[in-house]
Amino acid sequence: MKLPSIEKLSEMFSRFPSVGKKSAERMAHALLAMDEEDVQDMAKAMLDAKANISKCPRCGLYKEGDTCPYCDDPSRDTSSILVVTSYKDAEAIEDSGSYKGLYHCLGGVLAPSKGVYPEDLNVVALINRLREGNVKEVILATNPNLEGETTALYVARLLEEEFGDGINVSRLAYGLSMGSSLEYSDSLTLQKALEGRKKI
Amino acid sequence: MKLPSIEKLSEMFSRFPSVGKKSAERMAHALLAMDEEDVQDMAKAMLDAKANISKCPRCGLYKEGDTCPYCDDPSRDTSSILVVTSYKDAEAIEDSGSYKGLYHCLGGVLAPSKGVYPEDLNVVALINRLREGNVKEVILATNPNLEGETTALYVARLLEEEFGDGINVSRLAYGLSMGSSLEYSDSLTLQKALEGRKKI
Repeated sequence: MKLPSIEKLSEMFSRFPSVGKKSAERMAHALLAMDEEDVQDMAKAMLDAKANISKCPRCGLYKEGDTCPYCDDPSRDTSSILVVTSYKDAEAIEDSGSYKGLYHCLGGVLAPSKGVYPEDLNVVALINRLREGNVKEVILATNPNLEGETTALYVARLLEEEFGDGINVSRLAYGLSMGSSLEYSDSLTLQKALEGRKKI
Repeated sequence: MKLPSIEKLSEMFSRFPSVGKKSAERMAHALLAMDEEDVQDMAKAMLDAKANISKCPRCGLYKEGDTCPYCDDPSRDTSSILVVTSYKDAEAIEDSGSYKGLYHCLGGVLAPSKGVYPEDLNVVALINRLREGNVKEVILATNPNLEGETTALYVARLLEEEFGDGINVSRLAYGLSMGSSLEYSDSLTLQKALEGRKKI
C-alpha cells in the first residue's frame, strides 16, 4: 500500500549522510505537506547550487560562478597558505576571523583502511602553487586525530623534500579549548597543553 | 564568504522537521558532492511526488493519481472505518496486516494550546460518510496520550449525538506491548493492562 512516489522520495532522502530510513520518510511526508511553490523553490535551489558551484582548480574550495572568494580576492595575504581537509574546515577558520591568507583544500585525509591513499589527496596542486615562489608560510590545519595527524605529517615531509627550509611549515596548536574546564579535559589534551606551554 | 547557493540550500533543508542548521549544512554539502544526475533525479522525485500525490477527498489519506488505495479497493470491508490522526498511523496499522476495512484520517489531534480546534479536524467528512448508512463500526485509533485521548473522546461523543447506538464505536486496547517486560513497564500502562484484563 506504499505509494511509489513517497517510496522513491524516501529512498532519495536516505542518501544524505546521517539520514536514516525513518528520518527520510518523515522528510518525504513533510515535503508533501509543503506548498507546491516551496517544493519548486527547493528543487530549484538544489539544481542551482549544483549548476553554479564548482571547485576552484587552484585551491580546491567551492566557488560560485567564476570567482574564487579566496584566490581571486586581492586583499588577501598571498604569502601564506592554510591547508585544510574539507570546505567546512576552511569555513570554520574563516568564521574565526583570525586568518587573512589563502587556503588549500586536500579534499580528504589519508586513510588507507578506507581506501584513501596519497594520490587521492589534492597535493600536486599544492606543490605547484608553492613552486611559483610567492608563498613563505604553510599552516597545516588538519583535525587533531590519528588520520588528521598522519595527513599533516605526510604533507609536511613532502614539502620538506621539495622545498627544504624555503617554506615555513607549521600546524595549529593543541591545548585546552577556550571555555573548557581542566577537570573534564581528557588526558591527551592535558598532555598536549603541558607540552605546548607558553611563557607569560 | 558563505556562497549564496549553499546558504539558500541550507535554509531550504532546515525547513524539514528535526533538521537543524548544522544538519542542513551537512546535507547541502552532501548534495554538492553528488553526481549531477543524482541531484536532478532527486529534484524530479520531489516535484513528481508533489504533483502526483494528493489527499483522497473521501478518507483524507494520500493517494497517487486518481485511485485511493483504500476507498477504491473493492476487496476492503466497507462496513468498518478506522479513524487515524495521520497518514503514518494508517500505514502502521496497514503494515500490521490485521485490518481490512476502510480508513478515515482526521489530519491532526485536538490541541487548543497549539491552535488546533475541532473545526481544524476532518470530522465533517467522517459524519457525511457515516450518514450513507453502510458503516456499522468505527474504530478510534488515536495515540495513547493526552491529545490523542481527548480527540478520541471528542469524536466518540460527536458520533453518539449524531447516530446514538446505530454505530458501534470502539478504541484500540491499552496494555502491555508484546515483547515488553512487566518489570520495566510504566505504572499507567500496568494500570490499563489490569483494567483491561481478559478471561483466558
